[in-house]
Amino acid sequence: MRAAVMYGAGDVRIEDRPDPKVQQPTDAVVRTVMSCVCGSDLWPYKAMPATDTGRAMGHEFLGVVEETGPAVSGVRSGDLVVAPFTYCDNTCDHCAKGLHSSCRHGGRYGFDGVDGGQGEAVRVPQAEGTLVKLPVGEDSPLLPGLLALSDVMGTGHHGAVTAGVSRGDRVLVIGDGAVGLCAVIAAKRLGAEQIILMGRHTDRTDLGRAFGATDVVPERGDEGVARVRDLTAGDGVQKVIEAVGARQTLDTAFGAVGDGGIISRLGVPQYEEGPVGASMIMRNITLTGGMSPARAYIEELMPDVLDGSIEPGRVFDRTFSLDEVPQAYRSMADRRVLKALITL
Amino acid sequence: MRAAVMYGAGDVRIEDRPDPKVQQPTDAVVRTVMSCVCGSDLWPYKAMPATDTGRAMGHEFLGVVEETGPAVSGVRSGDLVVAPFTYCDNTCDHCAKGLHSSCRHGGRYGFDGVDGGQGEAVRVPQAEGTLVKLPVGEDSPLLPGLLALSDVMGTGHHGAVTAGVSRGDRVLVIGDGAVGLCAVIAAKRLGAEQIILMGRHTDRTDLGRAFGATDVVPERGDEGVARVRDLTAGDGVQKVIEAVGARQTLDTAFGAVGDGGIISRLGVPQYEEGPVGASMIMRNITLTGGMSPARAYIEELMPDVLDGSIEPGRVFDRTFSLDEVPQAYRSMADRRVLKALITL
Repeated sequence: MRAAVMYGAGDVRIEDRPDPKVQQPTDAVVRTVMSCVCGSDLWPYKAMPATDTGRAMGHEFLGVVEETGPAVSGVRSGDLVVAPFTYCDNTCDHCAKGLHSSCRHGGRYGFDGVDGGQGEAVRVPQAEGTLVKLPVGEDSPLLPGLLALSDVMGTGHHGAVTAGVSRGDRVLVIGDGAVGLCAVIAAKRLGAEQIILMGRHTDRTDLGRAFGATDVVPERGDEGVARVRDLTAGDGVQKVIEAVGARQTLDTAFGAVGDGGIISRLGVPQYEEGPVGASMIMRNITLTGGMSPARAYIEELMPDVLDGSIEPGRVFDRTFSLDEVPQAYRSMADRRVLKALITL
Repeated sequence: MRAAVMYGAGDVRIEDRPDPKVQQPTDAVVRTVMSCVCGSDLWPYKAMPATDTGRAMGHEFLGVVEETGPAVSGVRSGDLVVAPFTYCDNTCDHCAKGLHSSCRHGGRYGFDGVDGGQGEAVRVPQAEGTLVKLPVGEDSPLLPGLLALSDVMGTGHHGAVTAGVSRGDRVLVIGDGAVGLCAVIAAKRLGAEQIILMGRHTDRTDLGRAFGATDVVPERGDEGVARVRDLTAGDGVQKVIEAVGARQTLDTAFGAVGDGGIISRLGVPQYEEGPVGASMIMRNITLTGGMSPARAYIEELMPDVLDGSIEPGRVFDRTFSLDEVPQAYRSMADRRVLKALITL
């Protein structure tokens, strides 16, 4: 099969890889129908040291089950399925608590002999726990929205859930990338009254407004904090969803959150230390969030995608073929594309 | 009246101060019956720069109302009352959410012209919101336990509440000071199954066992983390209550908490930055807690003190007169006394 492999920063190639086969009784092989490039794929794209062996890329995909191991009974050959961005057994004690991202038998695509999602097929470990059958056909126009359940929509939702967003809340979403925009969808879905989106790419913040943002703040740093305070009668917001991962945006989150507020982080932190000193304690600020247990949310969110009440598929603003994946990375890294869809 | 005033590190004096009088319609004057020294009083006792004016000390007290302003109707002259360690109106939007520590009309004893609690009397601003009437007499043996509601017991409870301690949880309490010991009481009260107390003062950890600690870990740092992991089948605890405030104990908390776990901090941080990088995100760890809104918890906890089902008054291991307050500070700073009770 053909698949995307990264050999170092800026170096993504499409090349032949061994066809995936069932190796464990709990495996399934999925023929990929649709995949995409994640904002988190851009970190290695910017910084990965050169390597001879390469790393299979991609962790968001949707496709048709081709083969299942003997221990897999929940899905079968021919089923159209979506996979969350980490695989999981969906039965261990962590999964039972909804923490599928820490599954005791789980792992990541592209590591430990598991294929990446940006290729023609994927061997999916723990297939019964991982894969969720889709009640539509391969030609459904809803596929991009359903693909978003593999990561960005589940991640934005995780931010809103862990921030405790509830009816009437004032919420700040920092970052106008695909995750930030999905966090806007999630915050609105959970009843937030005011949703302030911090971002400076007009085409993205416009989509954010369409998703439910009530205010857009293009300013950053202290100026951005001052604007949020202005928009909230000086009090700051009750909930912040931080969807960037920079130290500056974390500082902004602390500046913009009101006393007793919650900051939920979704962006992979590009820093090791944060401002958790006396002020955080005196003001009773909570810092939460993390890697989304996307699998936990698929059943809850899917009906809303199917009936059109949420449209996370709109974050995909350009479609690429598998051959064009290197170009998809470049376009996203250059911020010419918000989120690249890959059709196979 | 006579009261304790700190003039710098190690320099606490008992001296004459003006008798408190009602200044605002919302004030009351309380004649102090019982007060105490807080662990947080020891920070200035160790480090306060010398000053000519001095700072009135103490923020935990219980006493008899002597005079009330015209806007005070909830308590009246002759009532025996307890005061939480910050005053508050109990009606603003923050108080309504249970965040009395951020009351819009609140403040701290010993600052802004308000008396400290370690003296013969206190002018209490926002008296109606602040003071809670006690259904016992001045001679009740329950007074120390009721005094604990002003701070340590409400603070330990805040740790358990914000950590989300619930039935069956594995909880680690870091610190065998009075707050840590009250956190043990609170964790047990909320149904924790395993309560590991980290501390190395046997007399204190023995009291912790009496309060409900199931395990005691005297080791610190990596060794302490390893012991907690041993005690929890390698998984770590679901909830940590960090009641010290040192950077090392925060690191211990992160090491000992399991995936998806919650760390609640009660100790005033003696550091500005903490380890909130990628590992916290990958493991979905939440950092919460803060200054207790002690007023919020008094009505909930008081019945349990009155019927003897919790005995936070046992943290007071020595009684001092007002004249002996300087000695009380010294004894606590030298760790010869766990928590000093002051009777007037």
